[in-house]
Amino acid sequence: MKIAFLIYEGFTALDVIGPYEVLSCLPGAEVHFVSKKAGPVRAHTNALSVVADYALKDVASPEIIVVSGGARGTFVASQDPEILEWIRTVHQTTKWTTSVCTGSLILGSAGILKGLKATTHWYAKDLLPKFGAEYVEERVVKQGKIITAAGVSSGIDMALQLSSMIAGDQMSKVIQLIIEYDPQPPHNTGAISKSDPATIQIAKGAADTAFQ
Amino acid sequence: MKIAFLIYEGFTALDVIGPYEVLSCLPGAEVHFVSKKAGPVRAHTNALSVVADYALKDVASPEIIVVSGGARGTFVASQDPEILEWIRTVHQTTKWTTSVCTGSLILGSAGILKGLKATTHWYAKDLLPKFGAEYVEERVVKQGKIITAAGVSSGIDMALQLSSMIAGDQMSKVIQLIIEYDPQPPHNTGAISKSDPATIQIAKGAADTAFQ
Repeated sequence: MKIAFLIYEGFTALDVIGPYEVLSCLPGAEVHFVSKKAGPVRAHTNALSVVADYALKDVASPEIIVVSGGARGTFVASQDPEILEWIRTVHQTTKWTTSVCTGSLILGSAGILKGLKATTHWYAKDLLPKFGAEYVEERVVKQGKIITAAGVSSGIDMALQLSSMIAGDQMSKVIQLIIEYDPQPPHNTGAISKSDPATIQIAKGAADTAFQ
Repeated sequence: MKIAFLIYEGFTALDVIGPYEVLSCLPGAEVHFVSKKAGPVRAHTNALSVVADYALKDVASPEIIVVSGGARGTFVASQDPEILEWIRTVHQTTKWTTSVCTGSLILGSAGILKGLKATTHWYAKDLLPKFGAEYVEERVVKQGKIITAAGVSSGIDMALQLSSMIAGDQMSKVIQLIIEYDPQPPHNTGAISKSDPATIQIAKGAADTAFQ
């Protein structure tokens, strides 16, 4: 089962590493990190590179794709004809087409979210309608074979749900134990609707900078 | 604030990418991915490389270190004199010395967990006493400036707690919102004490293979 994780200059590492850590546990998983060209790809912090072992042209017919989000780099990626064409092409035969965080803006730009509900990072929620999608504040949104997940850490939840659909609940339970996913977040500020005004204001300021 | 993330051949990517995504949001964070030598470092799945921009010798006096866990590669790393010497040296002046997952076995092998409570991935819990440490089944264990976290995904919780201690609760709340960390795990199998016998048995089998 070929799983392609799409990364690009300025991607957010946890967006893809979360789902990767989950999905790579699936029986028969063949993980492919893919980018425009093979080689190191810089994350949005500029402090980390992940290596794409594969170029887009080398990954045909993946059964699953996971499109990473990012900050300002996502805007560049979402206007890259080569990336959009690859998504449109492989989406025709994927079993599952997924995104995490602002990765849904890239799916949207590729034209495959028209008329669908979708989610993204809360900071980018007003951008989804540009692509004909309806933003919903849910952590994981499934529309047929397309699954979009909310910001950054949500890819772990998305991938565990996807694992259930692919390999059954028992396997998904096992993976959750393998990654010891018994989350104990110290605050209740993980969603915009749960957060307080001061926290939201500061977070928006930080996001303004990251997306500039 | 220099933060060093120690990786090695066979590390587990989410172990460090979780804390990295959190701690890189701290004001003044200077992220250094470090390994024996600079360059791509293969994760335990063999399907992914993360680039260490720095060799051990190039990272002196980090204020925080985060030591990654892994599978069988951790056993090799925990017997590597160069890695152990680096940990012992930098630990003398760190403000925080931390590990995720089986990374605590490396801290233990460096001799800095003697007489302390610590945690690790549930699969490796019987190995901590070899280093004079007492295993406790908690997600995050703080002993002075040493913090050990449980398996794989626990590094996110550890890093958010650490962020509170470094920069205050308000900043930690902001970071939790930035990474939209509102976890919704689909099962209740994230800890060994919460899991069912069938799930534990299958997960142990998978871990046996990974650690062989």
